[in-house]
Amino acid sequence: MELSQNTKILIVGLGLMGGSYAIALKKKGYSVGCITRSQSSIDYALANGIIDYGTTEVDPTLLGDADLVVFSLYPRVFLSWIEENQQYLKPGAILTDVTGVKTSIVYRVQAMLRPDVEFVAAHPMAGREVYGVENSAGVKVDEANFIVTPTKANTPEAVALIKRLGEELGYARVSELTPEAHDEIVAFVSQLAHCLAVVLMTCNDLEHLEDYTGNSFRDLTRIAHINEDMWSELFVMNREALLHQMDLFTDQFARLRDALAQNDMETMKTMMRLSTVRRDAFDKK
Amino acid sequence: MELSQNTKILIVGLGLMGGSYAIALKKKGYSVGCITRSQSSIDYALANGIIDYGTTEVDPTLLGDADLVVFSLYPRVFLSWIEENQQYLKPGAILTDVTGVKTSIVYRVQAMLRPDVEFVAAHPMAGREVYGVENSAGVKVDEANFIVTPTKANTPEAVALIKRLGEELGYARVSELTPEAHDEIVAFVSQLAHCLAVVLMTCNDLEHLEDYTGNSFRDLTRIAHINEDMWSELFVMNREALLHQMDLFTDQFARLRDALAQNDMETMKTMMRLSTVRRDAFDKK
Repeated sequence: MELSQNTKILIVGLGLMGGSYAIALKKKGYSVGCITRSQSSIDYALANGIIDYGTTEVDPTLLGDADLVVFSLYPRVFLSWIEENQQYLKPGAILTDVTGVKTSIVYRVQAMLRPDVEFVAAHPMAGREVYGVENSAGVKVDEANFIVTPTKANTPEAVALIKRLGEELGYARVSELTPEAHDEIVAFVSQLAHCLAVVLMTCNDLEHLEDYTGNSFRDLTRIAHINEDMWSELFVMNREALLHQMDLFTDQFARLRDALAQNDMETMKTMMRLSTVRRDAFDKK
Repeated sequence: MELSQNTKILIVGLGLMGGSYAIALKKKGYSVGCITRSQSSIDYALANGIIDYGTTEVDPTLLGDADLVVFSLYPRVFLSWIEENQQYLKPGAILTDVTGVKTSIVYRVQAMLRPDVEFVAAHPMAGREVYGVENSAGVKVDEANFIVTPTKANTPEAVALIKRLGEELGYARVSELTPEAHDEIVAFVSQLAHCLAVVLMTCNDLEHLEDYTGNSFRDLTRIAHINEDMWSELFVMNREALLHQMDLFTDQFARLRDALAQNDMETMKTMMRLSTVRRDAFDKK
């Protein structure tokens, strides 16, 4: 299958990310349908021209007609959905997702999936601290990464299709990682970062803090506004990788703490110099 | 003394923050001189109309003429400067500073200072991850706090003058804290935040990280580009307060880690809910 104007795309789960796919794909002229739990999301999307049609039911006709199905669901809901409804999928359909963890999802979906449909997992690394299709237009993709995590079960054609999808959606960089490499990186750059923000906001109850914070603190804690249902599920589904990153962090944090306790300026400066060099590498991209 | 167009202002140390004071005060029509180590900073400042005059020498005439002296020096350099050069200050002169720690500075300066001059400490909570007067124009004050930390040694008149200075400089909010309350808050919102960014950038050497980071991680680590000489000095000069905050953080981080290790979703969600509520309070200001 090639991505073309004839490709019938179905979004399952029209929240923030599902909505952002719908908006981008409709703009490019694709036909976009959706299945989602809430009628009000469908009403909003129809009124704003974000989808062509939508239903709150798992409609066999709609599913039997879709060439490309994008799942934008919580991890566990996604797994149950496949288990319960995969019989309605069109033979030859390509499935993809937006889930933020991969190892615990990809192999399980591929293991249970019918042999005549194919699932290529992807993680669009965009997002916001707000939710719902009403906020989808604000998802910024032009500096974001779109990571495809193929396995041996995937065909080169289907992987190429999903990479093409990432490009059509406007992501700055489309790349491939193994599910395991993805989960290690995400545990560090995204999940650990969210842990730090949450812990920072909860470790101290100084009063009137908001009167004295600078922009650094606000930047650091922006992601402390967090969807607890989604993130606790993502953490647990990537537990070993995240625990490993948390332990690396704890060790290095203790190193800085001990250096300070001992007035060891040299160790502190060495860490700060390394930090500065590494951070600079980010801005040179 | 009232702040007026006749007030002769002298900046000692024309770096990022000293330069930002000079720019704002010149714009308001004040006469601004400077003493700083580097001739190139003076040349730049003169060429760009940021100061009226400047010298690399501790010029007794210049000092004997200044009504308001702003010290924008590293903490230890500031202490030595006062010790060595205070004899040249004009009787009745008011001194202030921009130092990011207060308890370890304010009392020592006030204890050694001549009785006919007065030091009112202040912390302009603006800054950038770049340095030097060449970058001063980029210091954003319109959302920043200007905190004055008076002690019993201060007169209401001098405190009012320095608060007026903060307003003239354009800071969004001018407030008063004791040196101790200031240092506790700064240990948390600024120093701990910098610790986290430095540790995050140094705890893991995953390759090609910059290819996979999202905006959250970039926001979180922006301050990981850090001046190691200045910050290690600020950390040591606020050691006890910072160690306390680091320990609070470590305890809470361990709590989240253990919850994850035990699949304790409820504890994770409770922390995330609290984090969200607290972070929201910031945006409502």
